[in-house]
Order: sequence, then C-alpha cells, then structure tokens
Amino acid sequence: MVEISHQRAEFTARYFVESSVPISKAAEVIAGEQSSGTFLALPGETDALKNRARARVVKVDSHPPVLEPSLHSAHVERKGSPSVYYRGEIEIAFPVDNIGPNLPTLLSTVAGNLFELGEVTGLRLLDIDLPETYAAQFPGPQFGIGGTRDFAKVYDRPMIGTIIKPSIGLLPEQTAEIVDSLCAADIDFIKDDELLANPTYASFGERLAAVMPVLHRHADRMGRMPMYAINISGTIDEMLQRHDAVLRAGGTCVMVCINWVGFAGVEHLRKHAQLPIHGHRNGWGAFTRCPQLGFSFQAFQKLWRLAGVDHLHVNGIRSKFWEPDSSVIESARACLAPFVGVQPLMPVFSSGQWASQAPDLYAQLGSVDLMHLAGGGIIGHPHGIAAGVASMREGWEAAVEGIDLKTFAESRPALRAALSHFQSA
Amino acid sequence: MVEISHQRAEFTARYFVESSVPISKAAEVIAGEQSSGTFLALPGETDALKNRARARVVKVDSHPPVLEPSLHSAHVERKGSPSVYYRGEIEIAFPVDNIGPNLPTLLSTVAGNLFELGEVTGLRLLDIDLPETYAAQFPGPQFGIGGTRDFAKVYDRPMIGTIIKPSIGLLPEQTAEIVDSLCAADIDFIKDDELLANPTYASFGERLAAVMPVLHRHADRMGRMPMYAINISGTIDEMLQRHDAVLRAGGTCVMVCINWVGFAGVEHLRKHAQLPIHGHRNGWGAFTRCPQLGFSFQAFQKLWRLAGVDHLHVNGIRSKFWEPDSSVIESARACLAPFVGVQPLMPVFSSGQWASQAPDLYAQLGSVDLMHLAGGGIIGHPHGIAAGVASMREGWEAAVEGIDLKTFAESRPALRAALSHFQSA
Repeated sequence: MVEISHQRAEFTARYFVESSVPISKAAEVIAGEQSSGTFLALPGETDALKNRARARVVKVDSHPPVLEPSLHSAHVERKGSPSVYYRGEIEIAFPVDNIGPNLPTLLSTVAGNLFELGEVTGLRLLDIDLPETYAAQFPGPQFGIGGTRDFAKVYDRPMIGTIIKPSIGLLPEQTAEIVDSLCAADIDFIKDDELLANPTYASFGERLAAVMPVLHRHADRMGRMPMYAINISGTIDEMLQRHDAVLRAGGTCVMVCINWVGFAGVEHLRKHAQLPIHGHRNGWGAFTRCPQLGFSFQAFQKLWRLAGVDHLHVNGIRSKFWEPDSSVIESARACLAPFVGVQPLMPVFSSGQWASQAPDLYAQLGSVDLMHLAGGGIIGHPHGIAAGVASMREGWEAAVEGIDLKTFAESRPALRAALSHFQSA
Repeated sequence: MVEISHQRAEFTARYFVESSVPISKAAEVIAGEQSSGTFLALPGETDALKNRARARVVKVDSHPPVLEPSLHSAHVERKGSPSVYYRGEIEIAFPVDNIGPNLPTLLSTVAGNLFELGEVTGLRLLDIDLPETYAAQFPGPQFGIGGTRDFAKVYDRPMIGTIIKPSIGLLPEQTAEIVDSLCAADIDFIKDDELLANPTYASFGERLAAVMPVLHRHADRMGRMPMYAINISGTIDEMLQRHDAVLRAGGTCVMVCINWVGFAGVEHLRKHAQLPIHGHRNGWGAFTRCPQLGFSFQAFQKLWRLAGVDHLHVNGIRSKFWEPDSSVIESARACLAPFVGVQPLMPVFSSGQWASQAPDLYAQLGSVDLMHLAGGGIIGHPHGIAAGVASMREGWEAAVEGIDLKTFAESRPALRAALSHFQSA
C-alpha cells in the first residue's frame, strides 16, 4: 500500500474490475500502471515522486467471484488458469497535476492501457469525478439546453425533430424539398444523418446553399428559425470552414460524429464555435455493449461534456437498437444531472421513434428538456410529413397532460393515424 | 435483395456478425442502415438513389449458430428470445461517393450505428479494403519505416528503445538525467509514457528544454540523433505548437495518443508535421478485447495508416498484457504488409519486454523493421541502463545470427545478467 499525502488536488475514476488476482491487488496494479509504477520496482520511484504523481486506491468493493473469465487473457493462462476470477468495484484517485486541462491525456489516464493489463479479465470505466476548479479548465458546453432553446425559440416542451431520410443519396434539391415539407409542418429541429457529410453528389456547400433559403423562408413565416444540425464532420479545417459557412448563412446548429472526430477535434471546434454542437455518438455500441469492458454512458457523457458538446444522443425507448429502455432513461438523466458546474447536455432521443414513446419518456424522465427525433416516424407517417410532426407534438401534449394516448387521439387524426399505422408495423 | 449497378467505385468492409436473424438477412439490414435504408420502407428511396448510395452485400459466409447471444439485446428479448443466434462473416460494399476523403464519415459508415442494431448480438469490424485511387486521397504516413530510419540513422536492425520510467512524476532535470544515461548507452529511441504530456511540475516546454541539449550533446558524439518521441498530446493548437517547438529544437519525432486525440486531430497534425508521428494506441483494449465486438487490429491499423501515423504500438510477446503472442505477431505483420499504396507502419513492440523476446520476435516476424521498447527491461537492468541497452542489442544480434541466447550470452555480461535477472523475475 502506497502512503500518499492527501493534500494534493485529485480527480477520481470508478471501475468495474474482474481479475485473476484479488480486487484489492488488481486496484493497486491499476493505480501503479496508470501513474508512476510498472511491472518492476523502479529505482526512480522515490517517496517525493510518489507523493507528486502516484495514483492511490480510494475504495475497493468486492463482489462475488466468477468461475470463468469474461475476457480472455493469455497472460493469465500462461501462469495456469486460476480457480476463480475476482470481481469488484474500485475507485482510484489521480493527481490533477499529472494532467492539467488535457482531454487526450485525461483519457489515456482513466481509459488507457489498463484495459489491456494481463491480470484483468474485465474492466469498465463506470464514472469519473473532478474537482470543480479542475472541470472549469475544460471548455464545457457553450450553449447547453437554455442556449439551444434560445436559438430555436422552443420553450417548455421537447424539441420535436427528424433526420432527413433516406439517410444518404438525396441530391441537394431533393433535400431542400424534404426540408420544405418539414418546415411547412412547423418542425423544431432537423438533422442530417451521421452517414451524410460531404458526398460527391450532394456536397456540404451545395446542401447548405439549397437548404438555407428554405429555412429562412419558413423562419419568416414561423417567427423562429427551425434548427438544422448540418453534419460538418470532416477534417479540422473543413469543420471550422463549414461552421463558419453555416453561421454566415444564418444556420443555428452544427453536428459532428464525436467518436470519430475525436476529443481534440471536438474541443477545437467548441472553442471556435458560435453555434450549438450536436454530438452524434455513432460507434458508441463498440465502447459499451460488452458489460465487462469499455465505458458506461455516465463516464462518456461527462467526458464529452468537458469537451463541450451541447446535445448528445441517447437512443430511444423501444427503439430498433439493442439497448434496454432503463439504460436509455438513465443516460438521459445523466445528461441532465449536475456535474460540478459544467452545464447539462440536451439528451437526444432517436431510433425507431414515433409519437407512442412520448408518454413513457415523460413519465420516466420527468422533464421536457430533450430532443425527440423521429425519422421514419415523421417522414414515413401514412398521411405525410405534416401529420408526422403533428402526431409527435400531440403525443407530447398527451404525455404532459397525463391523458392516455388513445383517448387523446380520438379528436386528433394525425396521432390516430400514427397509432394505427406504426403500432402494427 | 437490392439490385445495384456495379459500375460505381466502392470500398468494402468485412465483419463478424452474430444475429437473431439469419446472417444473409442481418447483412441486408446492416447494408441498409449504413446507407440509404432504415427500419421502414421510405418513399424517397428510388432506384436512382439506390444506385447512387445504397450499400450492397458482397459476401455472406454462415458459421455454425450458437445457443446464447454474445451480447445482450433488449430488442431481441422484447420479441421473445430466439432458439439460436446465427453467426457468420459478411462483406459490404459502400459507394466511395457517399463519403470522399473524410475519415470521421468513413468511420461512421463502417463502424457507426451498426454496433447497436437490435438484431445484432455480436459485430466486429474485421477488415476494410479501399480502391487505390480512394486511399490515395487520405494523407497516409509521411515518413514510415524508411523515413524514420533516416531520421535516426539506424539501418538493418531493429530500433532499440525505451520508455522513460517512472512513467510520470519525474522533474524535467530528472528526465534529462535519465536521457543522458540512455544516450550514453547509444540507445536508438526514447519515448515518453502515454500518461505524460504536460504535468504541472514537468511541463512540455520545460521537459523539451531540459532534454534537447542532452540529445544534441550525444548526437555530436554518436554521429546520429537519438530519436525522442516526446508526447505532444493535447489540444489541436498545443499539438501544432509543440510539434513546431520540437522541430525548432532539433528533435526528430512526436508522439500522440491516437484514440483520444482522434482521427480529425491526428490527420490535422499529420498535414502540418515535418517529423514522424509515433502513434500510441492506449485504450485499444476497450475496442478489441471482446472477440464479438469492436475492431480487429487489421482494420484499426489501416484506418490509422490512412490518417498518417508512422509508428504504431502492437504490444509485445510474453508481455504483461492480455494479448496472445500470435495476435501480437499478426498485428505487426499487418503494419508491415502492403495496403493499396499506403506505406507501411513501423510496428512498436512494448510492455514487459527485455532481451529474451528478440529471437522469437525475429523468428516469427522475419523482419527487423520494428521498434523494440523495453522500459523496466532497460532502466531496471541489474547492471544499469548501459547494460540494459547492450543486452537488448545483443539479444537481437543473437536472434539474427540464429545463435541460442544462452550460448550468445556466455561472452556477453549484459545479456547474461539480463537472462539471470529477468528470467526469474
């Protein structure tokens, strides 16, 4: 056990760990590897250095062991497989001074080589916590929920939105036609698909040029600009240029695929941006679907909150995706929860959504600070796009008023058609 | 089955898939979701649009099904669990025109929402292949193996290197002292730990200022500059400034933590850089340790090769990490293999390494185009750093000459001491 001064500023990371060695030992290995230790005793690791740089184990909670490892380790097998694999939750405290306001290095510290340690047959980053003064050194969301609402002029209810479908393949003028229909239905929010950024046949510039006059025309009519999260993902230079083009054209949002642009790129965009950043989390499944590996959404959203996205996708309930509804709701709650002075994110519900999810979403989340996106659920509505948007809004009115959807739909043909069409789909 | 013109330029992605629906059906769902389809038939998905944008299934190889899902899916469970889960390998062809030279969008296409599809209970990106003309639109490595050797003036043998240890906590002058000892031993390559970028007590600038005079002093003596991969990971602006500072100071390499800087950031650095980029892959375990999820190294190295790193970590054989030796060797081979005109990467062997691994590495890889890094194995050598470096070089001489290590060590005290000290460790 390393004796370390508790005077220094520290941040913490909490993990699920499964290991061939007892959890308290695994915790010490992790704390060592992720700070000043290694697999051998090193001459230079003096007491002064340990006090400065060594991580310390704050907490070890053992869970019942298991007989089979969750993840294979050749390192363990070389030593002869143990009879049990220990499990538990641990918390490690790291000196803030090791890192400073450096997102890639923060990630390398809390989510780096430790996933590969030979003793480890399961490791998942469950949560991080930072001192407020440390968190304040990262950009954080510039606009968050309030700023987004001010851009969209939508208050006191969810922002109802959609994804342009087909996801990719439309020509710029075809996109503009769909946007025209969506705006005619008084939609609040439209986004590009994550697959669509700058295809040869519908470049970013051509799409922006085709779409913006349509948005402006409807904004004049509606008295508010429908928010269009145009996908600017690309190189650093392209993203800044595209952001500026959107801003110049009077657009009110940009979207990036956060996992593949990466932390440095998103943070750079955030520092440059004058518009809310819509964070698309595609690829997230690879980081989280194995329960004994990767990241919990709780940790993930905090890291991206530090980087400064304003909106973050959380899937939908009863979606076409793998995720249990309880997990979706927990994710949205995490986005909305306080985090040492870093402002909340607007959670974005999407995937297989239509009007029917509104009451359950509202009942479980207890908030209307969210975006509810229906792709096929709006564009594929049997009576067309206007009815699709209307049905979504009616679903939320029913939810907030606490009236059963079917009852509420009796006098509302759009909602009624959605219920009869999608329920059987 | 979608009928699509085969005239268009396409790239392909190959996956392992496990699914609640037969693999041919799962392949169609994935091809649809990752291009112009969705969970509902959409009015706008015309034949012309499909020809332009729809991905097509190229190949479906079914494997024997399994009775339990590898990954949990609430979507599958809502429908009542199936009796078997289908498994197989599939290949999907995507139109190049959907994406263009856009790394984040390439990733969103081959590694995006498909990991989360409800039908999918396992999905791993195994490989990608690009037309040469398409690959040529990405930066690719600027220096690769040959350029790195020219900077280091080390030819016809592995570059022997180390990681400064303790990984973090040293003051700049302490780092310089260790670098002095390493250079006195005629080391080829030194790198910072991935945890060390810009700590309060040993900032990037102070470390560079402390280390560079030492490197120059030894370069004058050795007739070659030991390559120091200084960790410049940070914000975009910091990374460019730090690269420039290294260049101005006469340094010959920069290191970044690629997964957490991200694709856009690394590509941006690559376009700016005049020095080789040492790619540290920490966090990789989270992407790959579940065999039914995430990425194979084969796909990962191709994607980072497009982004333009010059060196890439592959772990070591008999390392302190989880990875089987066969997988480590396969990764190194992938780095060295041709890839449609994009130059090879220098594989970096690291973790728990010392002289003993050289013969097996050489026998299995059949190449000396690599970096072999020993941290504790050099700095923790019982006779000190000079003997540590000598033992590594002697290990490789034995390997290449095909002489048994123990025999070779008889007349070489450094290697002999390493064998007796580390073998029992």
